Amino acid sequence: MSNPSKAPRPEGAAPHLEVIPLGGMGEIGKNITAYRFEDEIMVVDAGLAFPESHQMGIDLIIPRIDYLQQNAGLIKGWILTHGHEDHIGGLPYILPRLPRVPVYGAGLTLGLVREKLSEFGIKDGEVDLREVDLSDKVKIGTHFQVEFFRMTHSIPDNAGYLLTTPAGVVMHTGDFKLDEEPSDGKTSDLARIEQAGKDGITLLLSDSTNAERQGRTVSEAEVARNLETLIAGLKGRVFLTTFASNVHRVQNVINIAHRQRRRVVMEGRSMIKYAQVAQTLGYMELPEPFLASDEVGGLQDQQVLYVCTGSQGQPMSVLSRLAFGNHAKIALRRGDSVILSSNPIPGNEEAVNLVINRLYEIGVDVYYPPNYRVHASGHGSQEELATILNLARPKYFLPWHGEPRHQINHARLAQTLPRPPKRTLIARNGDVVRVSQDDFKVTGTVPAGAVYVDGLGVGDIGDDVLLDRVNMSQEGILIMTAVLHPTPHVEIVSRGFVRANRELDAQIRKVALDAIEQGLREKKRLEDVRDDMYGAVRRFVRKVTGRNPVLIPLIVD
Amino acid sequence: MSNPSKAPRPEGAAPHLEVIPLGGMGEIGKNITAYRFEDEIMVVDAGLAFPESHQMGIDLIIPRIDYLQQNAGLIKGWILTHGHEDHIGGLPYILPRLPRVPVYGAGLTLGLVREKLSEFGIKDGEVDLREVDLSDKVKIGTHFQVEFFRMTHSIPDNAGYLLTTPAGVVMHTGDFKLDEEPSDGKTSDLARIEQAGKDGITLLLSDSTNAERQGRTVSEAEVARNLETLIAGLKGRVFLTTFASNVHRVQNVINIAHRQRRRVVMEGRSMIKYAQVAQTLGYMELPEPFLASDEVGGLQDQQVLYVCTGSQGQPMSVLSRLAFGNHAKIALRRGDSVILSSNPIPGNEEAVNLVINRLYEIGVDVYYPPNYRVHASGHGSQEELATILNLARPKYFLPWHGEPRHQINHARLAQTLPRPPKRTLIARNGDVVRVSQDDFKVTGTVPAGAVYVDGLGVGDIGDDVLLDRVNMSQEGILIMTAVLHPTPHVEIVSRGFVRANRELDAQIRKVALDAIEQGLREKKRLEDVRDDMYGAVRRFVRKVTGRNPVLIPLIVD
Ligand SMILES: [Zn+2]
Ligand SMILES: [Zn+2]
Ligand SMILES: [Zn+2]
Ligand SMILES: [Zn+2]
Repeated sequence: MSNPSKAPRPEGAAPHLEVIPLGGMGEIGKNITAYRFEDEIMVVDAGLAFPESHQMGIDLIIPRIDYLQQNAGLIKGWILTHGHEDHIGGLPYILPRLPRVPVYGAGLTLGLVREKLSEFGIKDGEVDLREVDLSDKVKIGTHFQVEFFRMTHSIPDNAGYLLTTPAGVVMHTGDFKLDEEPSDGKTSDLARIEQAGKDGITLLLSDSTNAERQGRTVSEAEVARNLETLIAGLKGRVFLTTFASNVHRVQNVINIAHRQRRRVVMEGRSMIKYAQVAQTLGYMELPEPFLASDEVGGLQDQQVLYVCTGSQGQPMSVLSRLAFGNHAKIALRRGDSVILSSNPIPGNEEAVNLVINRLYEIGVDVYYPPNYRVHASGHGSQEELATILNLARPKYFLPWHGEPRHQINHARLAQTLPRPPKRTLIARNGDVVRVSQDDFKVTGTVPAGAVYVDGLGVGDIGDDVLLDRVNMSQEGILIMTAVLHPTPHVEIVSRGFVRANRELDAQIRKVALDAIEQGLREKKRLEDVRDDMYGAVRRFVRKVTGRNPVLIPLIVD
Repeated sequence: MSNPSKAPRPEGAAPHLEVIPLGGMGEIGKNITAYRFEDEIMVVDAGLAFPESHQMGIDLIIPRIDYLQQNAGLIKGWILTHGHEDHIGGLPYILPRLPRVPVYGAGLTLGLVREKLSEFGIKDGEVDLREVDLSDKVKIGTHFQVEFFRMTHSIPDNAGYLLTTPAGVVMHTGDFKLDEEPSDGKTSDLARIEQAGKDGITLLLSDSTNAERQGRTVSEAEVARNLETLIAGLKGRVFLTTFASNVHRVQNVINIAHRQRRRVVMEGRSMIKYAQVAQTLGYMELPEPFLASDEVGGLQDQQVLYVCTGSQGQPMSVLSRLAFGNHAKIALRRGDSVILSSNPIPGNEEAVNLVINRLYEIGVDVYYPPNYRVHASGHGSQEELATILNLARPKYFLPWHGEPRHQINHARLAQTLPRPPKRTLIARNGDVVRVSQDDFKVTGTVPAGAVYVDGLGVGDIGDDVLLDRVNMSQEGILIMTAVLHPTPHVEIVSRGFVRANRELDAQIRKVALDAIEQGLREKKRLEDVRDDMYGAVRRFVRKVTGRNPVLIPLIVD
């Protein structure tokens, strides 16, 4: 790993900052960004990502932090933009591996982090969480000054920040939409962005998630109005699912239920957890207490509204159990209504579709986007991205929080504006992006990528293991055990290959045994005999079945 | 299997028809429908389906035809609505297992069937293909009279049909949209539908694919105009992908290329195959011959347009190979444009997204829906579905070609119309739907479902094998071979479990050996010793890794 900052700055050279995205650049997920100025490092966020379909059996993915571990002594502080999993979900895995430094974040963000750390058995004293308001300035190390500012998003207390360094000013939007009617009335701090733009922004990092979407993202208030119109017209029980972290959405649903004279029942661990944290910290207000599901007995169907987990079709979620009829306490029936106040995240389409179909089969009424406008993205569309670029007027631009398609469309959008950035880079995780008043380029790379978390294991599964899983999932596995004494014979076991087939098994055993016996006659080494058996069986199986199962040849001498 | 038709009709009972969907009812894919009147059966289509993500390693899925095999002697004829894989893709597997009966279809449909059968080595004489025009009437058996009529869709020569039987008249739309500007000028035969509606339709089966989409589906002509506007503005080479079977789309692209002074190069086996069949049968006209890719040397970039396979992100397709830089002859470069005149079919979103991102990374310009309106569905939306229902005015209604969500929304749409059907059933594959002038109900079921095709195997993979594949893909496999003589020891092999880990292997070997030795001391039977080893290792592995790999315990005595 090259380390361009270790050397002292040459006489007269402009001071420069390094921006080193370790996650979230060229992808949507596991956001983590390091800033380095001379011998000081500041880190932003530490998120997780969910596996793609070829990453089989993986629970979740966290970013590689080799760079931070190798420069652990330089880390002066950490800031958190908001409480979404793709920004804080990696903290329990990452913070314990690095020195204890101040971690700054807003109230709800830190509340969710505390909850998360305690689930992992990490004690309060092991981390140095410091709460900030969303206009606070904090100093990190001697070179970094951070000023938080409010941005609307699909979770409260969401922040962007201005980072002032000797090499220039960086503005990072964080995740955002420019909701003009946010549920708590607290709009994005465009005035601060505009002022910073006038004062001069060297580099802008901005959220590219919806860079391909034209127009503006629908407001949370519009979603609430649509939900209320819909719910007001429903007669039976109502079951609504949404992202548990969308505290404003849940608050709006609670308010709607109250006005529509429905009591609210929360169902599902994560739904209850977020509601508890939000209530405790004052981000959620209940006009009347939640009911437990066994307290609804005296109520009529039209007096109850369940808020459930399961918006992504997760198999163990409440909505899935309801759809498949295996919820312990509640059974759906004709006359019930289910509202999916959500969209499937890419990769979850099939699971959500399955749940929706099962709900239809039960005979309940099902409401979901796009025909019912009961969800809005938390990320701004092209008009909102343009507003930020127009106000910030950055010299340099890094489209962030997006795959290449989103980054590049964000970059192109910037070029169409009246005052485009002087230079835009499409960076990737691990790039060392050097920024100074007169320079903006990638000067090297550091290790970056995915660490797989599976069960209790963190990092004990690599791409080689995943490749084995993919191969076995495609063609199954065939294990041949050749026992040499007293007379050679071969046993066959398979999984996921073909249905039990004695004739085929016998043929394979014969092919394997022929290879073994010939090898023994020729007095080959055992490894070579094993390889011969492997090759003979591979060719035979391919010929008669057209398949390539994973073959495991074992020889017992 | 109950067989309600075997008994002679009771005195005075109204004659009845049985509609028995064996595929395509409650799903989108592998369409096949049987009609039975007394001791005569007529079959419609025989399609295939593509696997869902949990059907791992499966190449394709064909319908179970137990009912047809058990009643093979009653089959009097077969009709084909159009040449899509979900309607004819099962024929090479199914026709050879049943008696030779007349198979009726339009010119292009039969041309594609012939091509397909010959790929499978099925000779012309083995099947009795009979070409019809799309207004022909054919008699099948003594009771079935079939009249084809034209419906627009995303492939030429697409048919609906009227089936007249002693029990009433069935109208089946087949797949359709009501394109008012089809490329060949041949619109859907709404006049025939209207007349049949006036004459009286007992039962309507209609395409539910887009029953959740409001308004009308975009016309093929509109797509062509958008493509031409786009292509006219492009300077470099153009690569366009679409569904190879969409002959009209490809024809339009050829015409656009000609007007824009670009020569066309066809790339990809299926693209070439469909174009050849369509040309040979007069469904495609070339203003000038296709070029081979090694003939473009003398042309400038803006004089060439490649039509490629790969609209679904298939790994071996031309577009994927171009995107990943491993095409043997062509390398994409900045200045090229790629147009995806297609949408991902559900399940292919991730693969298509990967290709699109790689194209962006290469630096080519990429154009695709929805921002560029360069694709339209082949299936009609709610207004078109309503038009059919209003014209046909059926007494009974079976929403077909859809999952439950599509079927039920189609049924609801029908109820909102001025003259709703008297009764609508949401049927599933295998239902025996009894239809007479005064009755419409499900009276029984026959076997129906999926036969998996994998490699050369048809039906040798069942859900048990797939479950093994899913389990191995999630947690890997661990094989323990216990050798008892001369002294007991245990060997461990794993795939897809964890990275090579000597310490863990040693621990597992010890746990296994302890179990073995204890069992031998207690003089247990070998099966019980093996089960003990299995149980001990399962508990140990779960405790230390949090995982449940597939465990294979082998004992060599
Ligand atoms: Zn977020
Ligand atoms: Zn995010
Ligand atoms: Zn079709
Ligand atoms: Zn179809």
